This record gives sequence, structure tokens and C-alpha cells, in this order.
Amino acid sequence: MNGWVQRDEAVVWHGFTQMACYADNAPVIVERGEGRELIAVDGTRYLDAISSLWVTTLGHRVPELDQAVRDQLDRIAHSTLLGNGNRVTIELAEALAAVVPVDDPHFLFASDGAAAVEQALRIALQFWANTGQPGRTTYLAFDGAYHGDTIGALSVGDGGFGTTVYDPLRFPVLRAPIGDVEAASRIIAEHCGTLAAVVIEPLVQGAAGMVLVEPAFVRAVAAACAEHDVLLVCDEVATGFGRTGTLFALEQCQVRPDILCIGKGLTGGYLPMAATVASRRVYDAFLGADLSERTLYHGHSYSGNALAAAVAVRHLQLIEEWDVLANVRARADQLQGLLAAHVVDHPAVREVRQHGLMVGVELHACPEGRRLGRLVSAECVRRGVLIRPLGDVIVLMPMLTSTVAEIERIVETVSGAIEAVCR
Amino acid sequence: MNGWVQRDEAVVWHGFTQMACYADNAPVIVERGEGRELIAVDGTRYLDAISSLWVTTLGHRVPELDQAVRDQLDRIAHSTLLGNGNRVTIELAEALAAVVPVDDPHFLFASDGAAAVEQALRIALQFWANTGQPGRTTYLAFDGAYHGDTIGALSVGDGGFGTTVYDPLRFPVLRAPIGDVEAASRIIAEHCGTLAAVVIEPLVQGAAGMVLVEPAFVRAVAAACAEHDVLLVCDEVATGFGRTGTLFALEQCQVRPDILCIGKGLTGGYLPMAATVASRRVYDAFLGADLSERTLYHGHSYSGNALAAAVAVRHLQLIEEWDVLANVRARADQLQGLLAAHVVDHPAVREVRQHGLMVGVELHACPEGRRLGRLVSAECVRRGVLIRPLGDVIVLMPMLTSTVAEIERIVETVSGAIEAVCR
Repeated sequence: MNGWVQRDEAVVWHGFTQMACYADNAPVIVERGEGRELIAVDGTRYLDAISSLWVTTLGHRVPELDQAVRDQLDRIAHSTLLGNGNRVTIELAEALAAVVPVDDPHFLFASDGAAAVEQALRIALQFWANTGQPGRTTYLAFDGAYHGDTIGALSVGDGGFGTTVYDPLRFPVLRAPIGDVEAASRIIAEHCGTLAAVVIEPLVQGAAGMVLVEPAFVRAVAAACAEHDVLLVCDEVATGFGRTGTLFALEQCQVRPDILCIGKGLTGGYLPMAATVASRRVYDAFLGADLSERTLYHGHSYSGNALAAAVAVRHLQLIEEWDVLANVRARADQLQGLLAAHVVDHPAVREVRQHGLMVGVELHACPEGRRLGRLVSAECVRRGVLIRPLGDVIVLMPMLTSTVAEIERIVETVSGAIEAVCR
Repeated sequence: MNGWVQRDEAVVWHGFTQMACYADNAPVIVERGEGRELIAVDGTRYLDAISSLWVTTLGHRVPELDQAVRDQLDRIAHSTLLGNGNRVTIELAEALAAVVPVDDPHFLFASDGAAAVEQALRIALQFWANTGQPGRTTYLAFDGAYHGDTIGALSVGDGGFGTTVYDPLRFPVLRAPIGDVEAASRIIAEHCGTLAAVVIEPLVQGAAGMVLVEPAFVRAVAAACAEHDVLLVCDEVATGFGRTGTLFALEQCQVRPDILCIGKGLTGGYLPMAATVASRRVYDAFLGADLSERTLYHGHSYSGNALAAAVAVRHLQLIEEWDVLANVRARADQLQGLLAAHVVDHPAVREVRQHGLMVGVELHACPEGRRLGRLVSAECVRRGVLIRPLGDVIVLMPMLTSTVAEIERIVETVSGAIEAVCR
């Protein structure tokens, strides 16, 4: 990479990355993109099979999305949403309001997805204080949950990822096994007097390694929340915007939460933007006298950023115009068939989990302590397909516009890499 | 505003805003920008005297910054920094490394400023765990401090802003009066066995209402940290990138912290980007075996976003090329003179606090409970100058490129508004 890796490690601290080994792990230094491909500084092309860590939806350098940014640049890049508005942010919120699975929604924008979760936690807690139940200050979250890296998000997230060291900063939460209706319902019933909300990732716990969550489980949790009047917060930062075959995973659960968190794919993978979506009932609890304590005193500087909003508006239109979700379902079926034929039965493979275009290929833990996930991913990168694992789980997250040939290439590469590394 | 306010309040939840009164408070719905002016949907122009809530530096629609976004669009909008790199992010980190007041710095990027603070808190705590002192898990922060709205940032922040309701989620911190060297030094000496870090906003506590912090105090705190080997975290999210007359406020304090947080002005006010800057000593403590517990398991999806990085690179160049800091100092002197002549002695004014182009005009609290800050700001907006108060403090935050005439207009408008409202 012509010295770029050395320049990189001299000044950039990469997240979730052991920097002592950064250069040894042959990182790709990206200079350009084109459709589903990334082009490195040395000209090498890589098929981006992780959607630049789960954010890119339609592709890199989509002419229509580029044009949306250019057009908004001719208006304004950003103006504050604190006490004032911006036309394009209103247009985005209106467009989102028509498609999110939340009743009569209001949108509180942020930039990092973790901030959308933090906003949800704060809104849920203050909702109860504002409605006369200040003792409702705890949360129920699930085993394997991941909701982001800020302290509040980390608190509702499960352990793992080296979080134990931060326990002195994390507030305690109630926790149930994912998928266990009886346990979740019992905890909700027993603790409804102190619970502010239940927080759940519908259909897929992404960071847990693509752990699948049954729609019926999400529905049962929602029903228990409704029965005992506990708020339901759904985190669709990873699953939102088409990854699971519907625009939102909740559509397949037939659940409409009180609060929804969105991010990542919201801007098609172009710009940081996240949002917390509140139902009318939740929103109304914050209405009151000007400057009163009922107000939500929370707001990020770049909330509702105009450039991000402009690309997000166009992105929603393109998903519709191009019938992107039909392609997601067709490619997901194709991917499932190819994985069944070439990967599932490999002796090194423990389990393949898939929902839509979110896939985890879990390898058997290696008795000699070899990091198989890391080795197989590195072999895929050598073969021109960018993959990044979660421990022993090879994550495949092809873009929503992937072609038949690209899906074939991804499976062929992964199965070849597993064979090469694990034989 | 031709129905835009109604469309806005129907779908957008504005931060730090009582939405029941949103429409009554005559919000400006921005459609376009031009230099230091915002243009509303009805064509009305407003001088943006709060830099779109403290983020805009050079202006709206700066041709050079627009061009930087356009050029980067022709390469790529975003690619992940988790385990891989992006050329423009490296270039940004190199450019920043040359100017930040941190020794041999590494940059961990995020999008929301609060996330930069959260990263600093996590890095400080894990630094001690990694170096064999796992009991160093508390922080010292100051009265009036504001570090953002996520739970970790809120914990080191002081009360106010309706945060009491969140006490069940906030971790406890030690707190000292700002400016009290004796108290701060004593707490650092007494608690150095459990302190991970001291967190401070150098020179100006912005959200506290532009409370001034003496350079000597910051220096004394830094000295106490050095003496007792406690990490120093400086939050320059608001003060960074020229507001105080130097690129960073710390230059005036002659202090180089272990960890620095930057955001807001980093992209000139165009796009969300924040960063946590770690000194070599801090960074080195995280180096270790691949996938080991020494790693920082923290990383936001849009960390190091390429479009934001491109505009940030160009922004740094323009600050230099245009000698922007000289203009800041000249306009700050002019502003101080005009405020002394026309505002300081008004009977309604309690105190004027200024550092560089960060100004707080504190009004006397009104015995009849009238919200003077709100009323004066609204009068300024009616007169075409966008102001947003912090309680009874009128905040003036002119852009760094403000002209003599614009500074005159701001003072004339504020003094006229105070006279009109408070007579």
C-alpha cells in the first residue's frame, strides 16, 4: 500500500482494532469506491461484502445520491435544529414518518447510532417521570445485546467486547435470555413497577454474531410490554433500511414500538445520521410550559444535518424507485441456496445464520487457539472480497443492490477461503 | 413561514426545545445559507450570530469547502475505519497532528461531540486497567461543566439542564468549584489512587453561560495532575478551531493534556465529526496481543467519515491561508469595545463575559418571572439577527470571518433589543 499503512498507524486510532497488529493484518487503505467495490490506494479493487461495516446500502458513488449532496451544498450544509428548523430535515422527517413502524412519529436526530439509543433511554425514563411515575428507572435488555459504545448504550448492551472493565461506569439493567418468552414475560410482569422500558434488536442481534431472533419472540415481548404498560424500545440501527428484506425488521414481527432507533443505512452509508423515533404517546408526555422540567434537555450540535438529510431523502426514494427490497429478497434466497450447497456442511462450519442479507457463518472454535475467523477473513481479502469477522463468525453483509454474480463470488470466495485455511 | 413551522412541529422533535411552545417562539425555518447569513423558507435573511449553535466557523456555502465535499464525492463518501483505513482520514489526522496541543497524537474519530467525550472517559479508565491500576475508575469534573448529553458525558457534566431525573443512570464523579485551585489540587492529591482523570473545559465553560476559566487555573490543574499522575482530559469541543483567538484554547494555557476532545468547528460547521486525541503515552498502553483485552473495543460506524474528513482538511488549510485567527482577535477586540460602550452598563445587564468570539451577556433575573433571555433573543431575531439564549444569558458567537460591519450590527441589535424589552 506504498507506505499508507505506516502513515495511517502513525496517527489514526482505529476502533475495535488492536493497533499493535494493525499493519500485520493487511488493512485495506481505501481511496475510492465504485458501486459495490472499494478501490485501494494501490489500485486494487475489493468487493465490499460487509457494506463498509453494515452502512452502505445501494453502493458507493451512486450518481443520484451524489447529486443529492451536491444540490444541498448549493443550499446549505448545516443549520441548527435547536429551537429552529431546516427545510430538508422537515422533508426527511415527513418521508420517514410515512414508512417507520411507529404511530404518529416524531424524529429526534443525532449522528452516531449509539446516541440514538442514548436518546431512547433518556426519553423512556423521563416519560415516566413526566407522567407521575418517577420510580420507573430500570431497563430490561437481552443476552448478547449490542446497542453501541457510549456508557448508556454499553449499559443496556450485554458483556463481551472487553466491556467488563467499564462496569464501574455502567448502570445495572435486568437481563433475560434472548428467545425465552417465559423468562422475559415473567421479568416484565414482576418488575413493571420499576421498568422504564424493554430494549431489543428485532430479528437479528448483529454484533452478537448474527444471532437470529424469532418474530414471535419480539411479538411476545411487545405483548408483555403492552399488558404491563412498559415502553418498548426497538433498536433497528443495524436491521433498518432493507437489510432483512423489509424496510424495517419490525414489519416482519408486526410490532409497533413506543420508541425506535435508526442509523447506519439511513443515509445509504454516505454520512453519519441517526434518529430516535417516538410515538405520539411518548412525545406528548414531554409537552408542557416553556422552559419547564417536562422538556427533553438533550440535543446534539449536528442534529438533523442538512447534507445528511438530503442524501437520506433521496435514498428513501431510490429504495422505492428501484424496488430494492425485491432484490434483497431474491439475493437473500440465492445466498441461502449457495451457502447451503457450499458452506453449511463444511466440517469447519458450526452454523450458518441468515436473515435477508445479514449472514453469520460461525466456525468451530479452534482447539489450538488459532483465530479462524481472522484467518478466513484475511484469506477472503487476499482474494479480493472485503470481509471483517466477529470473533469466529464470518459476517456477510452484501449491499442491497448486489447482483447474482456478486453473490456467487462472495460464496465462492468464502468457501474457498474456509477450505484453504481449515483443511 | 408558509406552513413550514406546522409541518416541522408535526414530525421533528427539536433538541433542548419545549415543543408545545415551538411555534409560538417564532422559529426560523432555514432553507439556504450565504456567508454569515441564513435564508429562511420565506426569503427572510438572518445574520447567524450563534454560528448555527457554535459550529460554523468560516461561513455557510464557502466555495472552497463546498468544492472539497464535491471532490471527495468523486472518490468515495465513506468507508469503514474498523480494521481498515481511508486515505483522506489519514490526511486529516496528519494535518491535525501538526496543530493539536497533544504529544505525538493518535485520533479516534466519532460523529457526535458527546461521543468524543465518552471515548475519552473509556480510554482514561482502561488506560489504568491496562497499566496495572484497575482501581482508577473515578473522575474529577467541575461545577458548571457540560460535556454532552449521552449518559457518560452527562455524568461528568454538572447538574442543570433538567438532568436530575437521570441521576439513576449517571455514575458518581468528584466535583470541584471551577477556578478554585486549592480545592481542585486537594481533591486530586487525596483521590489520586482512584482517579482515572480530571475533565475540564479550558478557558470557557460554554454551556454554563460562557463562564470564564483562567489559564492559570487550567495550568494549576494540569500541574496537580502531573504531580499525582492523574490523566488530564480537556474538552475543546466548543472552544477548539479558533473561537478563543488561538486554534485551541489550551495554547493560551500552555497546557498539553493526555487526552483532548474536539468536534463542532472541526468540519467548519458542515458535517458531524468529532475526535478523541490521545497522547503517545496513553495510546501505547493499549498496544498488545491481537484480539487481547488491552484493545479498545469501541468504534462508531461512521468513524472517520470521508466526506467530513475532506471538508475538515480543507478547513484547516483555509484557517491558515486566510489568517483567520488574526481576524478573530481583531473582531474580538472590536466586540469587547462595543459591548463596553453599549451593553455592559445597561441596568438590565448583570455581567458580560467574553473570550475571543465567545460571549455571554447575562441579564438580571426578572423578579416577575419574565424570561428576559428568551424575550431579548426573540427581539433580536425579529430584527434579523439569529440569537439563542442559555437561560438569562444572551450568547453571541459570531463566525470567525465576521466583518467589522457585522460585529457592529450584532451589538447594535442586542443593545436595541435589551432596551426594547427591558425598558
